[in-house]
Amino acid sequence: MAAAWDLLGNPSSVHAEGRQARRLVEGARAAVAAAVGGRPGNVVFTSGGTEANALALTPGLRRGSGRALNRLFVSAIEHPSVLCGGRFAPETVARIGVTRSGLVDLGHLERALASSEPALVSIMAANNETGALQPLREAAEIVHKAGGLLHVDAIQAFGKIEFNTGDTGADLVTLSAHKIGGPKGIGALVLADGVYGLDPLLRGGGQERGHRAGTENVAGVAGFGAAVKAALDRLQDNTIGRLEQLRGQLEDGLRRIPEVAIFSESVPRLPNTTLFTVPGLRAETAVIGFDLAGVAVSSGSACSSGKVQPSHVLEAMGFSRSQAQGAVRISLGWSTSEADIDCCLQAWRKLANTLLREQRNTA
Amino acid sequence: MAAAWDLLGNPSSVHAEGRQARRLVEGARAAVAAAVGGRPGNVVFTSGGTEANALALTPGLRRGSGRALNRLFVSAIEHPSVLCGGRFAPETVARIGVTRSGLVDLGHLERALASSEPALVSIMAANNETGALQPLREAAEIVHKAGGLLHVDAIQAFGKIEFNTGDTGADLVTLSAHKIGGPKGIGALVLADGVYGLDPLLRGGGQERGHRAGTENVAGVAGFGAAVKAALDRLQDNTIGRLEQLRGQLEDGLRRIPEVAIFSESVPRLPNTTLFTVPGLRAETAVIGFDLAGVAVSSGSACSSGKVQPSHVLEAMGFSRSQAQGAVRISLGWSTSEADIDCCLQAWRKLANTLLREQRNTA
Repeated sequence: MAAAWDLLGNPSSVHAEGRQARRLVEGARAAVAAAVGGRPGNVVFTSGGTEANALALTPGLRRGSGRALNRLFVSAIEHPSVLCGGRFAPETVARIGVTRSGLVDLGHLERALASSEPALVSIMAANNETGALQPLREAAEIVHKAGGLLHVDAIQAFGKIEFNTGDTGADLVTLSAHKIGGPKGIGALVLADGVYGLDPLLRGGGQERGHRAGTENVAGVAGFGAAVKAALDRLQDNTIGRLEQLRGQLEDGLRRIPEVAIFSESVPRLPNTTLFTVPGLRAETAVIGFDLAGVAVSSGSACSSGKVQPSHVLEAMGFSRSQAQGAVRISLGWSTSEADIDCCLQAWRKLANTLLREQRNTA
Repeated sequence: MAAAWDLLGNPSSVHAEGRQARRLVEGARAAVAAAVGGRPGNVVFTSGGTEANALALTPGLRRGSGRALNRLFVSAIEHPSVLCGGRFAPETVARIGVTRSGLVDLGHLERALASSEPALVSIMAANNETGALQPLREAAEIVHKAGGLLHVDAIQAFGKIEFNTGDTGADLVTLSAHKIGGPKGIGALVLADGVYGLDPLLRGGGQERGHRAGTENVAGVAGFGAAVKAALDRLQDNTIGRLEQLRGQLEDGLRRIPEVAIFSESVPRLPNTTLFTVPGLRAETAVIGFDLAGVAVSSGSACSSGKVQPSHVLEAMGFSRSQAQGAVRISLGWSTSEADIDCCLQAWRKLANTLLREQRNTA
């Protein structure tokens, strides 16, 4: 990536500097495509996941010479950039519910599609708050049978578990670099073969095969490519098994405080994510408490500037507003060690004991 | 900027890493605002100039509680990302012509506005092919008198000459980092006070005061801030005078081949840009010839992938398709030396003699 910062060339210029930048971009494109089993020519680089989602959610998408889709269904636990419906008019967008364990309700999906014209459906690969892995293959089968297309926001899953576009049946896939250790501000939309009708969000240049105008973020793209390769190497190193073991340790420790509830614990989850709560806990307080102990945790998602709002994901799963407000998310990283888990649990015991004692006293 | 690559934090997270990233972003925002005489709170970071232009060209913009603008005029020499009209419906967009010397035709602008409802008008600060500086103050006066707003794509001018939003009367200003030596893939839209109605292009997060959702490109933003500071330092070092002198040398040398014509030579131009032609020259050949001699030049603009197309700018200025096809652009950089100019002229003489001889032989 450092090499890319020093490159002056515009990848669309034909002089030597331009051609050098072009090679970096195309190398990264091949790496991203290979990582999800797609074709390089079907990778559209964007300024991040939000833009990739906005680009994907386009009325008029179709398979081959099939019917253009003008209706959108999104699962109720999607990222806000999907929930907002992209460029579909609000009256053409509807939500699909989820179960209490945080999986998209396939029965609901089937019924919704049965009473609708063919539709674009957007379901994430893994939820960003609970880590719950969505039943994509089953969903794709239902969507395709109803003549629709499936968009998968794979940002949270990509690089953390194996993800293959063909295996899942996804027609459009959103990826983001910074969630796998790459730079912020770069992402991609990967199309399956035979998907047409993508209306550019940014026009005025032929870049990205006409799908996205604007000079390429060469350094960002190169960094994305490098991050993808590193992530794939980690996946082959049994990092998943190690993370699952560490998370087991973490959750065993959390459960020592008897009131703790871990969300989506009964379904397959990403190996690095734990979302939990204790009745009466305020997530905001917990974040500050962990932070003081040197542990970065999140309450809900970090997608709105500094605001701690009750999670729409937990509300969609049927939890109350107050339960949702007390949810704290701990994410393990590739470099997380047993000592880190111990440190985190120590901070948690201290915090929980103090908080719970205070609450009992004031109750 | 290197510091930003190592930062893991999401600037929207409240933990320590997040706050550190936030500080970097806000520091850069202040630097960009100061550079164009704007307010930090009015700076919206985007993924580049193309996105900033697409965001600016939004139906519904208004001043204060004034009338929402639903009509757009763009000068005929704008960047394609402006010519395409952003989110205005094609039937609400019209072009304003330019003079043979490459300046927007203010008489045409005045007449167009007189027979239209109040409109958004988009005129660039400096043209990217000829370097011609547009009469922004006069244009702003005309636009405001007609109840409209002026958008200025200042990408080419920014950092190369003094540019102040207030002085020019611009209501929305587009900037890009990579044209001033910053990273590719980052830009900004700067609003004047009192401009409302900006409809976000990317939704699903409260970043950029709700104007642009998506995790911030922290490294890109930090690099933009650093590049702005460096560009301002250069502006104070009489680099403009030095570049003008070097360009004078270059153009004197070019003119030794008597048929050479330099576009926009009679009007104020950016100090670093020369666009010239020789009858019968094919720009594509010239680019390759210069490239072999180690000199990177451009034909037309580099905004479509590798394609050399006749310049819409020169056509708008009234030149023929064949004249436009032979135009070659040489841009001087901050580090360009007299020796570089000599080297460039040597390559040109060799190239021109060979080419012109060949043409005369085959004619």
